[in-house]
Amino acid sequence: MNIPIVQEILSANDEIARENRAVFAQHQLFVVNMMASPGAGKTSLILATIKHLPPDIAPGVIEGDLASSIDADTIAAHNVPVVQINTGGNCHLDAPQIKAALPYLPLDQIKLLFIENVGNLICPAGFDLGANLSLVIASVPEGHDKPYKYPGIFAQADVVVLNKADMIDVFAFDVEYFQRGIAMVNPTVPLFLVSCRTGQGIADWTSWLQHTTQCRTT
Amino acid sequence: MNIPIVQEILSANDEIARENRAVFAQHQLFVVNMMASPGAGKTSLILATIKHLPPDIAPGVIEGDLASSIDADTIAAHNVPVVQINTGGNCHLDAPQIKAALPYLPLDQIKLLFIENVGNLICPAGFDLGANLSLVIASVPEGHDKPYKYPGIFAQADVVVLNKADMIDVFAFDVEYFQRGIAMVNPTVPLFLVSCRTGQGIADWTSWLQHTTQCRTT
Repeated sequence: MNIPIVQEILSANDEIARENRAVFAQHQLFVVNMMASPGAGKTSLILATIKHLPPDIAPGVIEGDLASSIDADTIAAHNVPVVQINTGGNCHLDAPQIKAALPYLPLDQIKLLFIENVGNLICPAGFDLGANLSLVIASVPEGHDKPYKYPGIFAQADVVVLNKADMIDVFAFDVEYFQRGIAMVNPTVPLFLVSCRTGQGIADWTSWLQHTTQCRTT
Repeated sequence: MNIPIVQEILSANDEIARENRAVFAQHQLFVVNMMASPGAGKTSLILATIKHLPPDIAPGVIEGDLASSIDADTIAAHNVPVVQINTGGNCHLDAPQIKAALPYLPLDQIKLLFIENVGNLICPAGFDLGANLSLVIASVPEGHDKPYKYPGIFAQADVVVLNKADMIDVFAFDVEYFQRGIAMVNPTVPLFLVSCRTGQGIADWTSWLQHTTQCRTT
């Protein structure tokens, strides 16, 4: 009896995700859905990426959190247009929340929209937001076994960023084991090792993102 | 129309949680529900705690993961009775899953049962498993803002452990800010700073847990 209702929710979500996708296309806006555990460095990666982007790729941000506007305040301090969504107790963003946030962003002035999903390696994977790119961020202190334990989210990633890579030795993080875990569910997904703290790897990642953004919106 | 169905699920869960609680009491078993982000160190804390416990407090473990038996294998290698629950895609353990796992544990030989919930700072908070103690583990690399962003799980914690405390300086982690965030939703909850890697703080934490276990089961 529950399954049809869940399907209804998902198909209603997918319908609005399609509408969002059409709005993004109309505004030539490239949209990244960022998914990660709490504290993996989603906001830090947004800031590090924005710093490296050329000025013609104007960024915007939608922040998703259960509560607080801590991340939106951080983004706003860098003069980037940002909207905060507080989900209450909800463990993921959904397409209707994104649709509701869009009127608060200057869509014609933005080229690249980061959607920072709720910190969660499970639930966000099930909900299409209408984004062009699914980015999964892992971080070294979480451990190299995450792709084996949370295969669903790695399976649907278009790109994976491993943050806090300056801590690989400190946490005895086995990059090859981590990569094999991703390859089991997603053999061709690109992986970037970065440290938002030291700047390591950010240029390569940003250059890839910039290229991908330009290929898909032109 | 959805809310009554969710309530049905929750009240069915609560009913079975009550049954679990009765089984635990009957076997004089103290049960800890461990909740944390992916990679905060739940399995490491179980192992570090077990190592410090006196031999008369025999431990057992239920491991909850979306997929894999990595953590259960680690526990089993230490000759501790363990059952692995794979939730499929589910973002939390529930009381029926615990009930189903109990026949696979030597309940009369165990005094302290650790239930390692799915790595998730949101969903596990909503589901009573029948445990005696709700333990929330945070870790330093996740950042000091977690209580502000995920207040629900901190609000219902009986005790909080901050792991990877040897990294406080490296990650510029502000312990007072973290504590203030917890105090906003849970003013009297005890907090222990530990490092499972270096052993820092484990003796104090284990001594508190041992005392709590003995007070509640005698």
